[in-house]
Amino acid sequence: MIKIALIGSGNVAQHLISAFNESTETQIVQVFSRSPFTFDNISVVHDLNELAEADLYIIAVSDDAISDISEQLPFQNRLVVHTSGSVPIEVLSSKNRKGVFYPLQTFTKNKKVDFKSIPICLESESKSDMDLLQKVAGSISDQTFEISSEQRKSLHVSAVFVNNFVNHLYKIGNDICSENEVPFDILKPLIRETADKILTLSPNEAQTGPAKRNDSQTIQRHLDFLSDDNQKNIYKLLTQSIQNGKDL
Amino acid sequence: MIKIALIGSGNVAQHLISAFNESTETQIVQVFSRSPFTFDNISVVHDLNELAEADLYIIAVSDDAISDISEQLPFQNRLVVHTSGSVPIEVLSSKNRKGVFYPLQTFTKNKKVDFKSIPICLESESKSDMDLLQKVAGSISDQTFEISSEQRKSLHVSAVFVNNFVNHLYKIGNDICSENEVPFDILKPLIRETADKILTLSPNEAQTGPAKRNDSQTIQRHLDFLSDDNQKNIYKLLTQSIQNGKDL
Repeated sequence: MIKIALIGSGNVAQHLISAFNESTETQIVQVFSRSPFTFDNISVVHDLNELAEADLYIIAVSDDAISDISEQLPFQNRLVVHTSGSVPIEVLSSKNRKGVFYPLQTFTKNKKVDFKSIPICLESESKSDMDLLQKVAGSISDQTFEISSEQRKSLHVSAVFVNNFVNHLYKIGNDICSENEVPFDILKPLIRETADKILTLSPNEAQTGPAKRNDSQTIQRHLDFLSDDNQKNIYKLLTQSIQNGKDL
Repeated sequence: MIKIALIGSGNVAQHLISAFNESTETQIVQVFSRSPFTFDNISVVHDLNELAEADLYIIAVSDDAISDISEQLPFQNRLVVHTSGSVPIEVLSSKNRKGVFYPLQTFTKNKKVDFKSIPICLESESKSDMDLLQKVAGSISDQTFEISSEQRKSLHVSAVFVNNFVNHLYKIGNDICSENEVPFDILKPLIRETADKILTLSPNEAQTGPAKRNDSQTIQRHLDFLSDDNQKNIYKLLTQSIQNGKDL
């Protein structure tokens, strides 16, 4: 049994606790939480000095707090990882062995996810630490990847485009529907199919629409239709970007 | 049996033929195609003057050709509809009864879709024609909606945002991954979950990320990371738009 101590009790921490709880190869020996927190039979401490011994310490707190927390750990030479997509491995204190354990997914409170299909991006400073991280990640997910801090940065930026920005385009679609008293539900099968297409086609092959077809009449009609300047600007910029046909 | 003649043999036409072919309430009596085309046991003509009598004529051709084709039809007072999201009902010739039969989905050649879950937006000039369109649409889909030309226009613009533009953001994510030698596959579960979230949460509730959190440090790191001006501009504009929190 690999012993894990989890530092943090937020969204990502809770999803990790649930996942590890179902694994037969790992055991959460303790959770550190600043705020009151309970989870089934897991021991919770509120003082870092009370942390039990473990094979792996996973810091799952907000990006800004990672460095401080890692400095405050009252031990040395143990394996300490963070779970952030956007923070380099170096922010961790050098008194312990550093690593990264980044599950690339959007976690919603109270919505259970199937961890098996969530890619986990791993980084470490030694082969033996990587072996341990592979074992731990492999106990909850079928997809584990060794990814450098630089590569992870690019993944995180990409994730902003395909998740945060995509969701914002959903919002704009929703806004346009509301203004025109059309149920947004009509668009949901399209949203689903747009995402599904990418599983089998490259985004380039999957691209359709007036910008791709250079259908300037339809583009102009759409621009005339949009009364909001922000929506207009986004429409123009993304249309141009599709027409230029390259973002490299 | 409701008799349907299909005018056109492109992507949308083919998907409609397949769907109607499986329905027990409708029958495709004929397909008109300019180019050589065969489909199982369906009669195909290449001259509009040879079109058989039908209860409904569905024009599934490119937007620009709808008006011409409807003018060239060699009969009067029959029900003629087009399948376009962006063309008003008025472009159809007035010598026949007009209507719209717009399946709101992205159709990929050779990829079968489950028509049952595709919303079909209907428009007509009379209640009796609407009744017929509802019957026809209901024979292949569980989701039929009566939608005016003005509402349809707003739906079509929304669809550009949630389909064409979303797919383009996938492409940018793919480009960033390629440049950094990270497999784009790592992002696919996230893409899937981002779309799935919208089925249960509003886009507003589902929004996460540095822009939403006003995490200016991460935003600056991402902008520094992006070397392509086009990607930078899109990142800035969409971040601003999320931060303004309103697109209405």
